[in-house]
Amino acid sequence: MTMTGITGQISNEVVPGNILLNILRRNKGKWVSGEALATHLSLTRSAIWKQVGILKKEGYEIESLPRRGYRLLAIPDLLLVQEIQDQLETADFGRGEIHRYVKTDSTNNQAKELAARGAAHGILVIAEEQTRGRGRLDRTWFSPREENICASLIMRPSLSPGMASRLVLLCAVAAAETLTEAIGLKANVKWPNDILVGGRKIGGILLEMAVEMDAIDYMVVGFGLNVNSPAERFPKEIRSNTTSIFMETGKPFSRVVLLCRFLKLLEDRYSKFLETGFESVISQWKELTDMVGKRASIRTINGLYNGEIVDLDHNGFLVLRNNQEGEIRLFSGDITII
Amino acid sequence: MTMTGITGQISNEVVPGNILLNILRRNKGKWVSGEALATHLSLTRSAIWKQVGILKKEGYEIESLPRRGYRLLAIPDLLLVQEIQDQLETADFGRGEIHRYVKTDSTNNQAKELAARGAAHGILVIAEEQTRGRGRLDRTWFSPREENICASLIMRPSLSPGMASRLVLLCAVAAAETLTEAIGLKANVKWPNDILVGGRKIGGILLEMAVEMDAIDYMVVGFGLNVNSPAERFPKEIRSNTTSIFMETGKPFSRVVLLCRFLKLLEDRYSKFLETGFESVISQWKELTDMVGKRASIRTINGLYNGEIVDLDHNGFLVLRNNQEGEIRLFSGDITII
Repeated sequence: MTMTGITGQISNEVVPGNILLNILRRNKGKWVSGEALATHLSLTRSAIWKQVGILKKEGYEIESLPRRGYRLLAIPDLLLVQEIQDQLETADFGRGEIHRYVKTDSTNNQAKELAARGAAHGILVIAEEQTRGRGRLDRTWFSPREENICASLIMRPSLSPGMASRLVLLCAVAAAETLTEAIGLKANVKWPNDILVGGRKIGGILLEMAVEMDAIDYMVVGFGLNVNSPAERFPKEIRSNTTSIFMETGKPFSRVVLLCRFLKLLEDRYSKFLETGFESVISQWKELTDMVGKRASIRTINGLYNGEIVDLDHNGFLVLRNNQEGEIRLFSGDITII
Repeated sequence: MTMTGITGQISNEVVPGNILLNILRRNKGKWVSGEALATHLSLTRSAIWKQVGILKKEGYEIESLPRRGYRLLAIPDLLLVQEIQDQLETADFGRGEIHRYVKTDSTNNQAKELAARGAAHGILVIAEEQTRGRGRLDRTWFSPREENICASLIMRPSLSPGMASRLVLLCAVAAAETLTEAIGLKANVKWPNDILVGGRKIGGILLEMAVEMDAIDYMVVGFGLNVNSPAERFPKEIRSNTTSIFMETGKPFSRVVLLCRFLKLLEDRYSKFLETGFESVISQWKELTDMVGKRASIRTINGLYNGEIVDLDHNGFLVLRNNQEGEIRLFSGDITII
């Protein structure tokens, strides 16, 4: 994986552009003189002009007039690092570096590469567009430009690799809750890692990890959510099976708000899990699914299983029961409700 | 991880040097004329001279005299790619590329980097010296120059991540068997990943893997074995606890022979495991350990456990029993026999 031809932006340092943007934001729609800005930031007026140019390039609509100065007219609907940092309510997740790509192969790939080089717990990778967005088993996850959320969080939990099944469900629960809390959409979780609205796929979790014997070295939580894409944006093959917030509500929604809410819910759930265990995730998960009690056919890496879904166990394994095999516990697979 | 300042050598292609070496080897101790070699290889005599220079640089002792030609006097005791390929009896393991380093940080690190870039099942990484050799939980594994085996094998098993505990034991069994079969040393396995002779550590396995949800993306099996190091080579802190084949037998031993034997045993065990399951590994493991029935204290990532070791279960988990908790199943940990 290389970053050739891709623009990356790391923003854990407070650069003059950040302060400048904050001033313009506080005065949104109003003129701020170049001289006042220059004095406040201890920069020359031509340096201010240069910083404003960078912000405009990122998509901020800033008007500039001689003698009047600068005024911020609009903040673009982009996953901009400074907008995210401004709205984040987390303690750790997304609080360190945020790596933003206008276009990348997959945010999980970038996050894994960063983590392999030692990137810390809580570092976030986001992209406006993925060219090789992935779901489970290397399936394609369609991520068109500037309409949806593609984000990957690096985590370094002091947990054994066997906890992975629990964490997938925890992440899926946080994703479903994001839709309910922020938009009021009734979302379901489909075991193991899909988020559905009205039976159609709206988002998903892709968890990847590096394991050294009994310890997780790092974990990458990929989060994909269809936000502002209209139906025609999705390839025909998946259209009947796919939805977005825009398709469900008829309105566009701020991706920055949704991403920040997801990270907050995820962090809260994760802290609670570390403190009090997995029980609350299980009960939440059961509320968010309609699968228990149904007959299903599940294709796993070890084979095909049929039976009635009877429970989710304390490891986060789905419990399937049939007459031949009794109870079967499954970590992950492709599920078809019969 | 970068390879700065490290010499790598990939030899899956048959280069003229390979054929040249084979001819010299078949005629070891005898003169082979430069002209005969040039004719046979369709190279100029100065090209032959250059190839011989490369072999000399790798450590082969080759005498050259005008009018006589070249003769191979000695093959160095190094983990040379062509020597390994010449002696390998495997079908897959080590049959593709072998990446050799005179010095590297850790062969597992190099193997992980190769695997992350798509390197295939069976590709092998070897090093004469590791500067950051690792054991479990990032502990140091001492690997002095040109005396021992540091090797890492890339595997891409179609198995679920939960199979990792079985594979660690399978590798440890193959490592212990290598010592018994090749040298007649009675070796024990110490759960989960150490190989002991006479109660002292002589080798170990370090298994690392990349996991995507329910599938193993790749696995790296690191194999370290103390072969020709005398006691004084080991740091004082670990000397009383460490041994080598040289220390046990008083004689040096060919590392190439040992590595090839290990790969063959590992491949055979692995094929058998895929075909018939884990049972034979469990029974083999039990023969190679003296831990069952003993009281132990085991420190794991989830806490400290005390009890009697009663079994190894079908998942490769160690079963510990005590009055308070009943049966406890452990994947990995630091074990102390009481």
